[in-house]
Amino acid sequence: MRADDRWARAALSRLVEPCDKEVHGLVESVGAVETVQRIHEGAGRLGRFAARVAALDTERDLAIAATVGARLLVPSDEEWPERLREIALPPWCLWVRGPLHLGETVERSVAVVGSRTATSYGEQIAAELAAGLATRGWTVVSGAAFGIDGSAHRGALAVDGPTVAVLAGGVERPYPAAHAALINRIAAQGLVVSEVAPGSAPMRSRFLSRNRLIAGMTCGTVVVEADLRSGSRNTVGHATDAGRPVGAVPGPITSMASSGCHEEIRDGRAVLVTSAAEVIDLVGEIGADACEPLHGPVLPEDGLSLLDAAVLEAVPFRVGTDLDRLVVATAQPALGVRSALGRLERAGLVVESEGRWRKRPARLRSAD
Amino acid sequence: MRADDRWARAALSRLVEPCDKEVHGLVESVGAVETVQRIHEGAGRLGRFAARVAALDTERDLAIAATVGARLLVPSDEEWPERLREIALPPWCLWVRGPLHLGETVERSVAVVGSRTATSYGEQIAAELAAGLATRGWTVVSGAAFGIDGSAHRGALAVDGPTVAVLAGGVERPYPAAHAALINRIAAQGLVVSEVAPGSAPMRSRFLSRNRLIAGMTCGTVVVEADLRSGSRNTVGHATDAGRPVGAVPGPITSMASSGCHEEIRDGRAVLVTSAAEVIDLVGEIGADACEPLHGPVLPEDGLSLLDAAVLEAVPFRVGTDLDRLVVATAQPALGVRSALGRLERAGLVVESEGRWRKRPARLRSAD
Repeated sequence: MRADDRWARAALSRLVEPCDKEVHGLVESVGAVETVQRIHEGAGRLGRFAARVAALDTERDLAIAATVGARLLVPSDEEWPERLREIALPPWCLWVRGPLHLGETVERSVAVVGSRTATSYGEQIAAELAAGLATRGWTVVSGAAFGIDGSAHRGALAVDGPTVAVLAGGVERPYPAAHAALINRIAAQGLVVSEVAPGSAPMRSRFLSRNRLIAGMTCGTVVVEADLRSGSRNTVGHATDAGRPVGAVPGPITSMASSGCHEEIRDGRAVLVTSAAEVIDLVGEIGADACEPLHGPVLPEDGLSLLDAAVLEAVPFRVGTDLDRLVVATAQPALGVRSALGRLERAGLVVESEGRWRKRPARLRSAD
Repeated sequence: MRADDRWARAALSRLVEPCDKEVHGLVESVGAVETVQRIHEGAGRLGRFAARVAALDTERDLAIAATVGARLLVPSDEEWPERLREIALPPWCLWVRGPLHLGETVERSVAVVGSRTATSYGEQIAAELAAGLATRGWTVVSGAAFGIDGSAHRGALAVDGPTVAVLAGGVERPYPAAHAALINRIAAQGLVVSEVAPGSAPMRSRFLSRNRLIAGMTCGTVVVEADLRSGSRNTVGHATDAGRPVGAVPGPITSMASSGCHEEIRDGRAVLVTSAAEVIDLVGEIGADACEPLHGPVLPEDGLSLLDAAVLEAVPFRVGTDLDRLVVATAQPALGVRSALGRLERAGLVVESEGRWRKRPARLRSAD
């Protein structure tokens, strides 16, 4: 058994499940090398790893990784994502495929997640949101699953944007199998990442652990479509635990596919988001990435005082009317009506001709 | 000129626009009778009402009201809605058509408002929400406009629920004209209300004043569909000013018809609501009307500990497996695996036969 940190962490990724709190405590107090040594000795509760220790073959795991060009990252590597140092149960190591620098790639990144059983509305939104984020220089991180995950990756790839898929099983094993082509394309243009050793099967508990990495390595998480029981809500929980902002996309209330999103918003766990700009506004650093607030077209009659609005309303469109009639119509003092007419004329809303006032048609106004 | 409060307030509803702050101040300090007296004298700024004073004929206004069976309500009437005493610029009086007691009818009431240019999604939601509120004993208040307003009234009427239409023009004048049949039906089964004198035209400024009544007489306001410039957002502002809760229904982010709702939710002015129960939860008194939180179906495997979940995952479906193999598969101590199996067996999730464990199919579980 080799006694260096890198080798020990590779071994841990085969021996110990990602969220094993006992082993996390041990690694924290005595380091990875000593932890693996103690697991080999198998004293006390550490005897539970005996079968896995007997089957351990890190040389072989590294060889499997090599067949798909995957590299092994440990926390001391410069490529290690800074943000993963902040989460409660960091991965022992990461197995990484792809041409990008992981740390730099996720520095400005958003997790785009949601139901596997998405609707076409959800898939369209996921792809558009991901494309919008990618074109604004943000990396889209997801889990390569059916539905929202796949659409998010595809949306980013469609604009040649960086995207990172975090798998629950070994990095050499595309899962789901029907997404093999997608995952291989991500590995060719972006990054495919796993915290478990090559050859590991994607098991339910590993999906839950994997979700904490998706939430943990990104600046924030957006849920596009999630029913009340969607696994993506587990990712939301991890993002919240890590103090990262969460956004959720609303949808028709007639669709159960959005019910989880609506509940996250109602409960205040997520902010309602409707565009890539709003997502960046949510997850970006204050100032650096703030987005413009939405507003409708500004019309000249917006923001008129009550007096001016009442006078404008009393001015006819076709045949002009005189000041006296406007005073009667509005029941306002003549002086006030006169000054209101002046303001409305300067705003291009009314025109005067021989002492008679009429409204200026909107199409003339906009032609100015 | 008669010198009683009722007569004076009827006159005010003809002479003075609803939100005239000067006259509000006067009524508050010297009362309605003295205010009308001073308007007749027309000193200073009160001279602006001269033309309306000359045309004033309260006898005729009362006669017009009588033709449609409308009654005149003033704040001293027992039927006056309590909640209208709390708003900043209360109506001088209310002209009311319909068989119900106004104060009692709006005691438990929700304003359901939204765009005139609603989508079929919005109209469907408005009708369902209104029907749901009405069947739970809540009165639906709206403005009888095209789109959301009309659908809300219809939804309430469809379940024979009480509904109140607040008009911007005279109570005898159905507006919009295409909603005459709807408004007459509301007058026959619910209530049609206006604060301006019979014969008054529905003008833009009166729609804005009218919105403060819709927000002001209800426990809370729900916006079903609103684009960024919808007038219903004005109603939201009045509800907020009056300290009443506001809900907004989300929709597809691809539809501009929901963009105003989404912005109200994003900005924290409105709470996202998806059902009548959630609306009642929002506007109802704490405790009395609280609704059950939404949740998905509860499955036996929900809420398992990580250990139990890992063991359950390792147990095969068809051919059973023994404890030793489960210890290897989970890398957990035998003692822990054994007690997990006990818990899973009691939960009906696994079965044991001759020392071998297998999963219990879900359909057998649910048949219990």
